Amino acid sequence: MKAYEIEKFGFDGLVLTDRPQPEAKAGQVLLKMKAASLNYRDLMTVKGQYNPRLHMPQIPLSDGVGEVVAVGEGVTRIKVGDRVANTFFEKWVAGELTEEGAKSALGAGRDGVLAEYVALDEDGVIHVPAHLSDEAAATLPCAALTAWAALITYGKLKAGDTILAMGTGGVSIFALQFAALSGARVIITSSSDAKLERARQLGASDVINYRTTPDWEKEVLKLTGGRGVDHVVEVGGAGTFAKSIRAARRGGTISLIGVLAGGGETNLMPILMNGLTVQGIFVGSRQMFETMNAAIALHRMKPVVDQVFGFEEAPAAYQMMAAGAHFGKICIRF
Amino acid sequence: MKAYEIEKFGFDGLVLTDRPQPEAKAGQVLLKMKAASLNYRDLMTVKGQYNPRLHMPQIPLSDGVGEVVAVGEGVTRIKVGDRVANTFFEKWVAGELTEEGAKSALGAGRDGVLAEYVALDEDGVIHVPAHLSDEAAATLPCAALTAWAALITYGKLKAGDTILAMGTGGVSIFALQFAALSGARVIITSSSDAKLERARQLGASDVINYRTTPDWEKEVLKLTGGRGVDHVVEVGGAGTFAKSIRAARRGGTISLIGVLAGGGETNLMPILMNGLTVQGIFVGSRQMFETMNAAIALHRMKPVVDQVFGFEEAPAAYQMMAAGAHFGKICIRF
Amino acid sequence: MKAYEIEKFGFDGLVLTDRPQPEAKAGQVLLKMKAASLNYRDLMTVKGQYNPRLHMPQIPLSDGVGEVVAVGEGVTRIKVGDRVANTFFEKWVAGELTEEGAKSALGAGRDGVLAEYVALDEDGVIHVPAHLSDEAAATLPCAALTAWAALITYGKLKAGDTILAMGTGGVSIFALQFAALSGARVIITSSSDAKLERARQLGASDVINYRTTPDWEKEVLKLTGGRGVDHVVEVGGAGTFAKSIRAARRGGTISLIGVLAGGGETNLMPILMNGLTVQGIFVGSRQMFETMNAAIALHRMKPVVDQVFGFEEAPAAYQMMAAGAHFGKICIRF
Amino acid sequence: MKAYEIEKFGFDGLVLTDRPQPEAKAGQVLLKMKAASLNYRDLMTVKGQYNPRLHMPQIPLSDGVGEVVAVGEGVTRIKVGDRVANTFFEKWVAGELTEEGAKSALGAGRDGVLAEYVALDEDGVIHVPAHLSDEAAATLPCAALTAWAALITYGKLKAGDTILAMGTGGVSIFALQFAALSGARVIITSSSDAKLERARQLGASDVINYRTTPDWEKEVLKLTGGRGVDHVVEVGGAGTFAKSIRAARRGGTISLIGVLAGGGETNLMPILMNGLTVQGIFVGSRQMFETMNAAIALHRMKPVVDQVFGFEEAPAAYQMMAAGAHFGKICIRF
Repeated sequence: MKAYEIEKFGFDGLVLTDRPQPEAKAGQVLLKMKAASLNYRDLMTVKGQYNPRLHMPQIPLSDGVGEVVAVGEGVTRIKVGDRVANTFFEKWVAGELTEEGAKSALGAGRDGVLAEYVALDEDGVIHVPAHLSDEAAATLPCAALTAWAALITYGKLKAGDTILAMGTGGVSIFALQFAALSGARVIITSSSDAKLERARQLGASDVINYRTTPDWEKEVLKLTGGRGVDHVVEVGGAGTFAKSIRAARRGGTISLIGVLAGGGETNLMPILMNGLTVQGIFVGSRQMFETMNAAIALHRMKPVVDQVFGFEEAPAAYQMMAAGAHFGKICIRF
Repeated sequence: MKAYEIEKFGFDGLVLTDRPQPEAKAGQVLLKMKAASLNYRDLMTVKGQYNPRLHMPQIPLSDGVGEVVAVGEGVTRIKVGDRVANTFFEKWVAGELTEEGAKSALGAGRDGVLAEYVALDEDGVIHVPAHLSDEAAATLPCAALTAWAALITYGKLKAGDTILAMGTGGVSIFALQFAALSGARVIITSSSDAKLERARQLGASDVINYRTTPDWEKEVLKLTGGRGVDHVVEVGGAGTFAKSIRAARRGGTISLIGVLAGGGETNLMPILMNGLTVQGIFVGSRQMFETMNAAIALHRMKPVVDQVFGFEEAPAAYQMMAAGAHFGKICIRF
Repeated sequence: MKAYEIEKFGFDGLVLTDRPQPEAKAGQVLLKMKAASLNYRDLMTVKGQYNPRLHMPQIPLSDGVGEVVAVGEGVTRIKVGDRVANTFFEKWVAGELTEEGAKSALGAGRDGVLAEYVALDEDGVIHVPAHLSDEAAATLPCAALTAWAALITYGKLKAGDTILAMGTGGVSIFALQFAALSGARVIITSSSDAKLERARQLGASDVINYRTTPDWEKEVLKLTGGRGVDHVVEVGGAGTFAKSIRAARRGGTISLIGVLAGGGETNLMPILMNGLTVQGIFVGSRQMFETMNAAIALHRMKPVVDQVFGFEEAPAAYQMMAAGAHFGKICIRF
Repeated sequence: MKAYEIEKFGFDGLVLTDRPQPEAKAGQVLLKMKAASLNYRDLMTVKGQYNPRLHMPQIPLSDGVGEVVAVGEGVTRIKVGDRVANTFFEKWVAGELTEEGAKSALGAGRDGVLAEYVALDEDGVIHVPAHLSDEAAATLPCAALTAWAALITYGKLKAGDTILAMGTGGVSIFALQFAALSGARVIITSSSDAKLERARQLGASDVINYRTTPDWEKEVLKLTGGRGVDHVVEVGGAGTFAKSIRAARRGGTISLIGVLAGGGETNLMPILMNGLTVQGIFVGSRQMFETMNAAIALHRMKPVVDQVFGFEEAPAAYQMMAAGAHFGKICIRF
């Protein structure tokens, strides 16, 4: 079968190659992949910034959707013909993340999904909402579930709350969508007025151009009557964290999300004096994914897909991620 | 001033009389009442079914809105001219309900708000959303907050969840509205197709006429693919509880609400075998009220007021409650 | 191998027989059983009261400890030579109980552990604290975990809280022990002063003989200054529930536990008026079991084993359970 | 009456002076102070490091115990003769901390308790456990409640958990005591073997001398089998936070406590990758104080008082705090 492999770090190291087609062993299902999506983590992985000790060659990408074409001995949850997404962690079904679960993340330590066929533990796949295209469904495993876990599972967002989403990347746009359909108010930032306008159409109540308003945290306070937001979805890293803290209300929550948060340094004092909770969010379990799917299906919510590349064009998808000008998700169709 | 008093149990015992106008003592505010609303509890109180040892004469009703016309010494939260609702419990500001708080419920043990002027602790009033009429705002203290506490504060409802609301009384319609704006799916029952149609317009996804479908719990299971609902807002009492339990999903929640739940008897076994949580809900704190107001204001949500009676017609409002044919709330305008 | 089977309901129906020894299939481990313990549910199962449609012949009992003597393909968590207990639900690893998990309870629908060898999913076993004898460890899967789930996982018991344990059966004595090592105060009831004295030695602060003090709920109120207890571990069923509700404090919790709770009928009104939470507890997940084991190991806590029967004497163990005079757990040694 | 005042920043600025005795206004109680205790915040306040814009002259100290000698109009919770502590926040009774509540902290913005008489809102005092001396009871409002809020109210500590306490100051020793009586394992650090020995006698399971073991976070990992602790009570500030993060288990909690945490800078990445929760703790409400008192009373727990100074020697108490060699709390007897 055809598969991409990271053979060395750098864009040159991502090569299309041939591999033996995997089989569905006992407890496994075999997927014929239909679509995949990229996250910033995938870019960092290729560049060697995410896992410097990556075992190579390795198949990249953590998020995909496929059709089940074979099931191994003892498989009962899933049957041939099912359309499923993989889960980001192959072995995090429910409850708290274990060490074993943490090691089971795809695409940056164990083989990912950028291949024609992928064999996975039956526990590591999940049915996806019927109204979604394969590409749209392929955006769910990492970005959507991270936003869901942050705001809903751990954040316990409720109608009338206000959240702050930073920028218009995958997680932020999902945060906007989930918050809006939960009855919360959304303030979002971007450096582009055009993107802010699109965000408004998706349900953002208030938008801030952080280029023309560099003290955006003060604008957030103004928009909330001096109170601050209930929840900040922090994806920006070092430079933004200090401002995020000032944008949160007393007793508010800041979700540290995904790998964008980077190697920041910060003053801890305001966390204490304002009784803030800072929660590190590392995607979520399959059981959380199921509750997210229920919400997506009920509202026939559509993930925002910016551009879809063909399987042969996968490197161009990485280049687009590197350019950073996208709005929502970048996908690959097999 | 004019005030209604319960002088003896029964409709005859509710009389319009004169009382000295109260003053705002230290820590108190004086309200000139503008509107009030009725709950089933108020009907039971007049009939002697709620608190058989009611101290009489007593001013009835727990829910009202007024204008602050005077403030006592030391009052800082509230100022003259403010439009406020009272809270159901004069002394439940936040946190867990205390014994002292429990004794401070208005209208069925201490004087309520069916009077031209009412003096209350400044902690026992709250500003109301600006877009609401006085009558609409007067529906919030008991019925709305009960639904909010059940579903949101304690129930932690999330988008994609499914709730079951029973009937179209005050609490049930608020439950429908709060669930809908939280992104949940709402199934509602009634004996009237016309009321079910109105419920659908307010956001109910599915409706069940329990007269034509007496085994409505089976219909609920059918509508949820055999799974059951996440949350039942149980207002019906003895006859409905056994069915509610069967309509709830494994691990689901049943909120026992208000006084309608009555003196029921039930089999506890399914609670255990299905890992259900049954939570008794007795209105809520002022801090919960504030979060509810934020949601109402953000969505410019309108409480459903069925009919508004003049102050002189208050007895007719009780009669309408007794007839049980209303949809939403019954109000009084001063 | 030798195994007991339920061939028909009634004590006569429990027979020692021969069965082919199972093998460890893919994903499974094979246990050579060392010890087992009985729960009231096991007695009800044999008598036909628990699952009237029990598929027969069926191997009974849900709780056991064995040594792993073989592992199937793909097994990684467990290795030959490990000493493990089974989990009550073979397929409830973590998070919320699913339908699939609920069907995986042992000994009353699928074969249990009263056999020389048992093959189980590797996910369905757990290492046990080293300081425990096989018999002591065999008491953990159902009774201990039920008490732990009720008080600790769901009940969030904290130091200074007061609990009420009813009687001196398995769950109640575990509740006593877990509450005591969590810094809570324990009030316990029994009809026997001798048992109450033993309970006191295990850490109960206060004891009530419900034979000599039939209005034991009033005594509970007296012992708590009129306030009531924070948490009632309700195992008694119909007759006790009404009293339990009166023994709980405003806002308190009542855990409905195990099968003893029976087919009771009750008045729901006090649940509502006192804001009680009634939580149905149906054992717990393996992840809960792990946290319980950490507590047991840290404190070198010893489950209370009343009597140990040999494998050949298993029917006598059932008879002892039926007599109801035990204190703590009844075990079987293989 | 005699009272200390901060007249300017620095030890010289703390002077004993005369003030008119306050009166109990409506809603207030008047305390004749019996004892007080110091926190590191009090030292910082005097030195101008805590609140640079302190309104002066101001009476310092946030924690004290007194006898009620008068009550104002409308006071019902408290009566003359009661022995009470003040609460750290005069206006945080329960629930979430409000802006109004946050401004009501004593001793660093509004007058504190280092005076012969203090008038406080009746909501701002609380009865203290009978078995405690006045000095011991005076240690509770800030240090004890901070440890309780961190571990118990927000941290939901359970038996079998492991915590890490840093150093042997007031909050850390309370954290040790509360964790021990909750059935948790306690690892504690200090630079003094003698203090570590005392900590062991108070219930610490494991001790680490951070002077002889500068990589103490590695020792913590070793002591926990590589897993890390469930909860770190972080009082050390910039230098320790990076190590605390490495000492915590996946999914663990780090409580940022009191003013010692200082103006640190840190890398946020591990918070995200290990799914940590960092919670800023700013003391707690009176309702939390009540649950803490229940635990202290049940266990007849004794706060650790290092040294007691006379009222006239108050400046020496500050000097002792500055020296930093104490173990537990420094108190003042009036």
